[in-house]
Amino acid sequence: MTENPDHLVLFMPSGKRGRFTKGTQIIDAARELGVYVESVCGGRGICGRCQIDIQTGEFAKHGITSTLENISEFSGKEKRYAEKRELKDGRRLSCSATIEGDLVVDIPQEGQANAAVVRKVDDGRVIERNPAIQLCYVEVEEPDMHKPLGDLDRLKVALERDWGWEDLMVDSHLMPDIQKILRDGEWKVTAVVHKDMDGSRPSIVALFPGLKNQAYGIACDIGSTTIAMHLVSLLSGQTIASSGTPNPQIRFGEDLMSRVSYVMMNPDGREAMTIAVRNALNNLIENVCTEAKVEPKDILDLVFVGNPIMHHLFLGIDPTELGGAPFALAVSGAVHTWAPDLDLTVNRGARVYVLPCIAGHVGADAAAVTLCEGPHRQDSQMLVVDVGTNAEIVLGNAQHTVAASSPTGPAFEGAEISCGQRAAPGAIERVRIDPDTLEPKVKVIGVDMWSDEEGFEAASSVTGVTGVCGSAIIEVIAEMYLSGIISEDGVVDGTLAAKSNRIVEDGRTFSYVLWRGEQELKITQTDVRAIQLAKAALYAGIKLLMDKQGIEKVDSISFAGAFGTFIDPKYAMVLGLIPDCDLEKVNAVGNAAGYGAKMALLNRDFRREIEDTVTRIEKIETALEPDFQAHFVNAMAMPNKVDPFPKLGEVVNLPQKKAPSEANSDDAASGGRRRRRRARS
Amino acid sequence: MTENPDHLVLFMPSGKRGRFTKGTQIIDAARELGVYVESVCGGRGICGRCQIDIQTGEFAKHGITSTLENISEFSGKEKRYAEKRELKDGRRLSCSATIEGDLVVDIPQEGQANAAVVRKVDDGRVIERNPAIQLCYVEVEEPDMHKPLGDLDRLKVALERDWGWEDLMVDSHLMPDIQKILRDGEWKVTAVVHKDMDGSRPSIVALFPGLKNQAYGIACDIGSTTIAMHLVSLLSGQTIASSGTPNPQIRFGEDLMSRVSYVMMNPDGREAMTIAVRNALNNLIENVCTEAKVEPKDILDLVFVGNPIMHHLFLGIDPTELGGAPFALAVSGAVHTWAPDLDLTVNRGARVYVLPCIAGHVGADAAAVTLCEGPHRQDSQMLVVDVGTNAEIVLGNAQHTVAASSPTGPAFEGAEISCGQRAAPGAIERVRIDPDTLEPKVKVIGVDMWSDEEGFEAASSVTGVTGVCGSAIIEVIAEMYLSGIISEDGVVDGTLAAKSNRIVEDGRTFSYVLWRGEQELKITQTDVRAIQLAKAALYAGIKLLMDKQGIEKVDSISFAGAFGTFIDPKYAMVLGLIPDCDLEKVNAVGNAAGYGAKMALLNRDFRREIEDTVTRIEKIETALEPDFQAHFVNAMAMPNKVDPFPKLGEVVNLPQKKAPSEANSDDAASGGRRRRRRARS
Repeated sequence: MTENPDHLVLFMPSGKRGRFTKGTQIIDAARELGVYVESVCGGRGICGRCQIDIQTGEFAKHGITSTLENISEFSGKEKRYAEKRELKDGRRLSCSATIEGDLVVDIPQEGQANAAVVRKVDDGRVIERNPAIQLCYVEVEEPDMHKPLGDLDRLKVALERDWGWEDLMVDSHLMPDIQKILRDGEWKVTAVVHKDMDGSRPSIVALFPGLKNQAYGIACDIGSTTIAMHLVSLLSGQTIASSGTPNPQIRFGEDLMSRVSYVMMNPDGREAMTIAVRNALNNLIENVCTEAKVEPKDILDLVFVGNPIMHHLFLGIDPTELGGAPFALAVSGAVHTWAPDLDLTVNRGARVYVLPCIAGHVGADAAAVTLCEGPHRQDSQMLVVDVGTNAEIVLGNAQHTVAASSPTGPAFEGAEISCGQRAAPGAIERVRIDPDTLEPKVKVIGVDMWSDEEGFEAASSVTGVTGVCGSAIIEVIAEMYLSGIISEDGVVDGTLAAKSNRIVEDGRTFSYVLWRGEQELKITQTDVRAIQLAKAALYAGIKLLMDKQGIEKVDSISFAGAFGTFIDPKYAMVLGLIPDCDLEKVNAVGNAAGYGAKMALLNRDFRREIEDTVTRIEKIETALEPDFQAHFVNAMAMPNKVDPFPKLGEVVNLPQKKAPSEANSDDAASGGRRRRRRARS
Repeated sequence: MTENPDHLVLFMPSGKRGRFTKGTQIIDAARELGVYVESVCGGRGICGRCQIDIQTGEFAKHGITSTLENISEFSGKEKRYAEKRELKDGRRLSCSATIEGDLVVDIPQEGQANAAVVRKVDDGRVIERNPAIQLCYVEVEEPDMHKPLGDLDRLKVALERDWGWEDLMVDSHLMPDIQKILRDGEWKVTAVVHKDMDGSRPSIVALFPGLKNQAYGIACDIGSTTIAMHLVSLLSGQTIASSGTPNPQIRFGEDLMSRVSYVMMNPDGREAMTIAVRNALNNLIENVCTEAKVEPKDILDLVFVGNPIMHHLFLGIDPTELGGAPFALAVSGAVHTWAPDLDLTVNRGARVYVLPCIAGHVGADAAAVTLCEGPHRQDSQMLVVDVGTNAEIVLGNAQHTVAASSPTGPAFEGAEISCGQRAAPGAIERVRIDPDTLEPKVKVIGVDMWSDEEGFEAASSVTGVTGVCGSAIIEVIAEMYLSGIISEDGVVDGTLAAKSNRIVEDGRTFSYVLWRGEQELKITQTDVRAIQLAKAALYAGIKLLMDKQGIEKVDSISFAGAFGTFIDPKYAMVLGLIPDCDLEKVNAVGNAAGYGAKMALLNRDFRREIEDTVTRIEKIETALEPDFQAHFVNAMAMPNKVDPFPKLGEVVNLPQKKAPSEANSDDAASGGRRRRRRARS
């Protein structure tokens, strides 16, 4: 023991440190330094969420000699916990152990997961946990005829006494159950306090008898094609189950506009689609709960994102206004509501948060992608692209951000391509064309080798080669361009029919025969035109935003969504879908919308961040911009082809989800394309 | 025109005055002085709620010469209003007219009803209107592709711009309808903002196309026997329809405890009674709406009071805990909830406020009576008594207030009296006994004369004389005592049988034959005992509270409820139900609970007042007080009979609802009783 009453304590892995008086509880020291340590039981030593380890030894750099004598002895509280629940060797409860000398305190990994990191994003940012709900265990005074406060009122007194909650509101649905829960728990209960209801005072939204040591949330991206849901522990921050399902609204209309039409033509159309999506959500909730062995009533907070039409249908709002100019959203701001109001079968007190929409064509999904990628958090100019039936484009930095939607149509999804098919075994997913012979080689989903490798025929015989999946369309058109089959104007060069029997006449134009097997797969002139239109729309939208920002070049590109995940960014550049950018800075970021939803679920500060960001984003309506048409016409052509890819044949076996280092194997090519793009613009 | 830029303006009838610059709008001048002038349209000259009159002439006392030249000329806005809606001669719109010289401004009566006075209570207090909702007419910007805010978001912008509402919350049930309402109203709508939801930020709870110039509220007292409801205009403060109905829960149990037993014995009992009372409420809502030609969707705020068991059953809470010690309320504080959560068929956004309960036996009805009578608002000691199956007693002043419930049982309601019956034609309601002959005379409901007057027999032949109604029980026992038929111990004096054949042997005791007709109506010794027990319980409770307050005498008594309305306070004092008090200060205050509910409906400041008062009331549980038993035993006897009433026979034809001046016709008698009471205590 030192005679100095102040002891130096270092918390790892955060590295935060401070001086504390002898006898200070370690949890209090941590909180004073802003080191996140969970606690549900309020320091009673029963929830075990505040565990720590002590690192012993001399830490010369910090001037600390940490020994087990510098922490208080194992307390009765800790012994009782260890007997009842198990406490790993060396572990201590920070709500019990006190500082008796200099210490190095380690917040163990599973504990630290509480505080941080679902995924480390590129900027090294760590996601701190600050969910909308908090579990608060209390012991409530029993009724007393001398002080005839109601049971609920005494619960509120206990929550103020132990947790500092003043004037909590209470969900009225709890009232019929409060007395039973208090008595079932023998006056020990865990209240769930929700702190993020659109500026309401915090509310008691659920009540459990005894100690409740776990609570869950849902983060969900309602896509027009697919709904993806994650079940997340609100106490550990971990995703414990995920599930996806096709959006059942597809039966009312394949794409968004056909669903709006369905509503306009059918009096019950809106209601039918609202019921369909909510049923699908309830099925997914059941799936993830079953998978993770979680009771739906333990789900207490839910975050949803989706494009404006999905957003409206989910909330029960008629999307007709979104079907035509001026594309008026019923509500653009974030929506806070109650899960039962949306017929969701979770805890009756669970709240729902829906991220704000950016504009009538740029929805809460785009807001979530923006939240995830964070152009508004950095100085360099970041381009965020989410390609679906429309492409949502966000471009900017901390100073200024612009957003637009570009009408790419469904070609990028393979929908308007003659041999297009969905990504399933047998679908072509990779294509290379020999520029000399014009012979193609392909890879199909479900087979590991290229079509010119030995054994391919046998391996592919089960499924056959049945079509070209969405992401491969880009690749085949780009390869056709690189090999000279199509010109810069996008015309299939009929003169090459003399050189290769892959070039065939098709009415008044020519086609390229990509595959000859049981099925013949051709890329027609119409297919090329469809991709040209789509890529021109995308590029024109991007160019418009670059004009608005006054920039000639973007510093990084984030490709969100399935399309971004599966295409090779190089080919996107060859075709001129996206502007010049260092390939190292082009990232496929997968379901960034779902990840943005998860961020908003785990930390309500992100809700304020995106709400604020959305109000500051400048919205560009492409239809109203005179320059858009000009950009569009210019972008129909292929970029100037200065140099082909070097070492092209080596780019094989791209992983489905692209890591930055892989996307970056070819700086020279990137430089070349940069020059080309500048030449055009 | 004076050269002084400041003009003196006097507002009548409030008498508030101030100096204002030439050109000041009169509505702004009024608001600056705290003179309440309604406005729904926000000064657009279309709602017509801000009308004023100008009084002209010399007002020497105030130093004002008010002329029509001192107000701005009739404006285009006023002309348009007058053409469209009618503006009475001389009337001006204060949102248009400006101050051009000294003025005396009259807020007309129907306008002033907005601000004040539903009823003037005894202390001269005026009830200012400050309801929980506010109607706000706005003109919303149309959608604009350049600024793609949602329709709701633009509505919020307009409400902030025109009404200063920042960050309004929005009921999620409105979202599906917002676009249609805005378009139906051609972007002109009236939003209903609710400002009193338990500390939440104000919310948009309803939205109407165009100008909505009226909104209604419900004030309701859910009694165990009768439910009484008032439909009130929240803009004028006037009660526009009232209705009552027997509580249909009576079929599950006549009194409160039998209803609790029903719940304990029947698994579905609680739900059945909750449904029964809510259905009855919906029927009443339909009745008052039909009577007043009001749409239920125009009801936007509701206030309920009731005893703890009615309160719990209405809210869907099992009242079992209230059936035994420690009589734990599920919730004692005020309840804020949504009307649809209670299955009430009013506007979907309507809110419900339930006054706080004082204790397990002293409910929200007693809180409402307290709010109405206001012991906490004055310095003198006020006793408030509400007699039902239990008597709720509140005693105190601004410094300290105490409350208790006394188990009087149902005798005061006539339920345990052999010849008791409900108040209906044929029931005896008034009794006088000649102290010399012991012959009675009675009045029956439905007949205007006393039984000894000519024509009574013919007039009463239709209904007969069938029983004694609750309030008359007090009178007949008191008259029996005053005429010597019963002793101070409450024993029917059998020796009088020799003097009068009205005294008859009845087993081992004697009875008094009150009526001989088709039916013989007897007051038995058991009847006398039942009333003795009830009055002893009431008096013991009051005495206990007086002990707690350290007082020997109360300054005033308010008798609430039907019992208080119908009994003659003199007889209540003769029997010793209530302590000595100047008879002038004994008031029957009728349905004070319903009136308290109306106060809370019209002015949310009263909600805060009663919430605060209830927390400061000291609750006394009679069962736990050792002195209660002693007081009870002492109070069994009749008070010392020092002098009988002078001029007794003249006290006739008491009105059903007693006015203070009438209750005060007999100061000498009151003095006499005061002496008697002091002698006993």
